[in-house]
Amino acid sequence: MEFELSGKDAQSSARAGVITTGHGKIETPIFMPVGTVGSVKAVSQQQLNDEIRAQVILGNTYHLYLRPGTGILEKAGGLHKFNGWDKPILTDSGGYQVFSLSNNRKLKEEGALFQSHIDGSRHLFTPENVVDIQRSIGADIIMAFDECPPYPSDYEYARKSMELTHRWLARCVQRMGETEPMYGYEQSLFPIVQGSTYKDLRKISAEFIASMDCDGNAIGGLSVGEPEEMMYEMCALCCENLPVDKPRYLMGVGTPWNILENIALGIDMFDCVMPTRNGRNGMLFTSNGVINIRNKRWEDDFTPIDTGIECHTSNFYTKAYVRHLFVANEILGLQIASIHNLAFYLHLVKQARLHILQGDYTDWKNKMIPILKQRL
Amino acid sequence: MEFELSGKDAQSSARAGVITTGHGKIETPIFMPVGTVGSVKAVSQQQLNDEIRAQVILGNTYHLYLRPGTGILEKAGGLHKFNGWDKPILTDSGGYQVFSLSNNRKLKEEGALFQSHIDGSRHLFTPENVVDIQRSIGADIIMAFDECPPYPSDYEYARKSMELTHRWLARCVQRMGETEPMYGYEQSLFPIVQGSTYKDLRKISAEFIASMDCDGNAIGGLSVGEPEEMMYEMCALCCENLPVDKPRYLMGVGTPWNILENIALGIDMFDCVMPTRNGRNGMLFTSNGVINIRNKRWEDDFTPIDTGIECHTSNFYTKAYVRHLFVANEILGLQIASIHNLAFYLHLVKQARLHILQGDYTDWKNKMIPILKQRL
Repeated sequence: MEFELSGKDAQSSARAGVITTGHGKIETPIFMPVGTVGSVKAVSQQQLNDEIRAQVILGNTYHLYLRPGTGILEKAGGLHKFNGWDKPILTDSGGYQVFSLSNNRKLKEEGALFQSHIDGSRHLFTPENVVDIQRSIGADIIMAFDECPPYPSDYEYARKSMELTHRWLARCVQRMGETEPMYGYEQSLFPIVQGSTYKDLRKISAEFIASMDCDGNAIGGLSVGEPEEMMYEMCALCCENLPVDKPRYLMGVGTPWNILENIALGIDMFDCVMPTRNGRNGMLFTSNGVINIRNKRWEDDFTPIDTGIECHTSNFYTKAYVRHLFVANEILGLQIASIHNLAFYLHLVKQARLHILQGDYTDWKNKMIPILKQRL
Repeated sequence: MEFELSGKDAQSSARAGVITTGHGKIETPIFMPVGTVGSVKAVSQQQLNDEIRAQVILGNTYHLYLRPGTGILEKAGGLHKFNGWDKPILTDSGGYQVFSLSNNRKLKEEGALFQSHIDGSRHLFTPENVVDIQRSIGADIIMAFDECPPYPSDYEYARKSMELTHRWLARCVQRMGETEPMYGYEQSLFPIVQGSTYKDLRKISAEFIASMDCDGNAIGGLSVGEPEEMMYEMCALCCENLPVDKPRYLMGVGTPWNILENIALGIDMFDCVMPTRNGRNGMLFTSNGVINIRNKRWEDDFTPIDTGIECHTSNFYTKAYVRHLFVANEILGLQIASIHNLAFYLHLVKQARLHILQGDYTDWKNKMIPILKQRL
C-alpha cells in the first residue's frame, strides 16, 4: 500500500492524499460505506459504483466469519469475488462486534470468547485467528484485534484495556509476518489507538501504535457516547502523535459535521453506519440540512431530495414520493434514502478534498457546518 | 389508444401487437410489473427501465386512494409525475382489493362499503367514484369496477355477481363519457369478463363486455384457486368471444408456464405479483427452471443467477452471493430477486413475441414449458 500526500490546508491539519491498494486508488479524505455482511444494506454494487461513487467499502470480520464463513469466502476467492466489488475493501477486526453484539463474551489474555448472536454457538477470537480470518476474507486493509472500552470507563480499566490492545497488536503484527495474502494482492494491517477519554493514555497509545510502523493507523473507541468536544480533543491528540506520512482512520464517525471537523484535525478515512441506518429510519442528510422525510411538511413537496449533489437518485425522486414510500412501508424508500445519504457523504468528502487542495478548507468548513446541521 | 396486430401464430391463437398510449407504445404480449402503492416493490424506476425493460406498470386504485390519496396525486399532476414513471400505467379498479384486503365490506347495488385495512376508516367505492379516482391517478388504461367472486362459487352467486358487474360496467362507461382526463392525455377504460368457472356465464359475460365496444377487454376472476386446466378452458372461451382487434388482458396470472399457455389462447396482457412476491421469498424463475435460493445446494455455486437473459443483475450476481443475502436477511437479496424475476418475465414475453412473429410459437412454447417448470 502506498500513501501520497497531495496537499494540506494552511489553517488546519486537513490534508488531501491518495492511497494506492491492490484494488486501485482511494482519494482521501474518504468516507467508506459499511457493508456489514458483504452488502451495503439496501444498495446494489452498481449503485455503489455509479451513483454513490464509493471508492472503498467496509466489511465486518465478525459478521462474515459467522455468515457465509471463511470456507465459502475462500472457495469464492475472497470477498471481492464473492460480492462482486472489485475496488478496495477494508475489514474491521471483529473486536467491536464481539463486545456490542455477541452474548456471554469473556475477555482473556488469549483473546475473546463469545457466543454468536445468531445461533448461540461458541467461538474464540484471538489476535492470530482474526488475522487469519481477514486473510481468508481478503480485504486490502485489515484491522488489528482490539478491545473498545465503553464510555465512560474508569482510568484503571481504560489503561489495562489499552495495554491488552497493545499486546494483542504485537501478536497481530507477528501473525501478519508469518502468513501470506491468499489471493495474490497485498494486505495492509492498521493498528488501533485506544485509551478512552484519557489524554495521557491516548498519547501513550498513539506513540506505541506509531512505533509499530504499519502502513496506516486507526483511532478507535471514540463516538461511543462521549461529548463531541471530547471526541475532537482526543482525535486531535492522537493525530498529533501519529505519523504525518501515513493515512489516519477514525473508526465509526459520524455525522457530516463530525466528519468535516475531524478532517480539520488530520483524519483521512471514515466509516459509519449513520448514513444507511438513519436513512432507513427516514433521516436524510442534504446540502441544505437534515430532513425527517416522514414529516407531513414533505407530503406535497414535489422538489427533488437534493439537487446540490451529483446523484441520479437524489436528483430524480421527490421528497413527496419518498415520504409516501416511508409512510406506506415500501422497501424502495429504504433504498432511496440509503443511496442518497451515502452519495451525500461521498460528495461531502470530495468537496472537502477540493477545498483542501484549493487552500480554503477551514473557511469552507466553517461556512458549511451550520448549514449541514439545520433541521429542515 | 390504438391496437395494431403485427402477427399471428399459425397453430394457436397467439398474436403479437402494439398498443399505443399517451405515454408511448407497448409491444404485446406483455407482462406488467405490479406497482401496488406507486412503487414496484424493492425496485427503482431506473432498474425497471434499464434492467427489467418494463413497458407498462400497474398501480392499485385501492392502495393509491388510501395512500397517498387523490389530493396529493392531483397536486403532483398524476401518478406518472408522482412516481417518476413516464411510460404507460394501468390501474385496476380496486374491486379485487376491497374483497381481499379490507374489513367489514358490504356489497350493495350502489357499490362496496369497506373499512381500510390500514386504519379502519370507512369508505364507499362505486362505479362512478372509482372512475373519478382513476381520473385523478391518471393511468393510461383504467379498469371498470367489478366484483371478483371467490372460487368455488355456486352458480347462483356467480350469476348474480356477474350481472352486478355488468350493471356496474354500464355505470362506469357512462361516467367515463361524462368526465374528462385531467392531465391532457387519453385514458382508456377496460371492462372485465366475470362468470366464475361456468361456461355459459363466461360466454354471456364475454359477449356483454364485447358489446360495450371499449378500447380493450379484460378477463377477471381466474387464477383464484381453480385447477389450471379450468383456467385455460375459461380463458379460451372468453378469448373466443372477445373481439380480435382489441387487446385482451388476463388479470393476475401467473407462473411463466401459465403465461405461455394463455398467450397461445389469445391473451395480450398479463400482471401478477408472483415474480416480486415469490422473489422476496427466495423463489427465482430462470431460463433453466425454478430455484429456491435458500437451499444449501447454492451455497458454493459461484455462477450467475441466469446468463440466459439480458439483465445486468441476473448476469452479475452469483447464486452463492444471493443465497448468502437471503440467509443473512439482507435487503439487497429482495432487490436482486425482484429485479431478476421481473427481467425474466419480460424476457419471456419478448421471446414469445419473437416466436409468434417468426411463426414457430407453439413449438417453442411446448419445448419451453417443461424446462421452465423444472425444480433446480
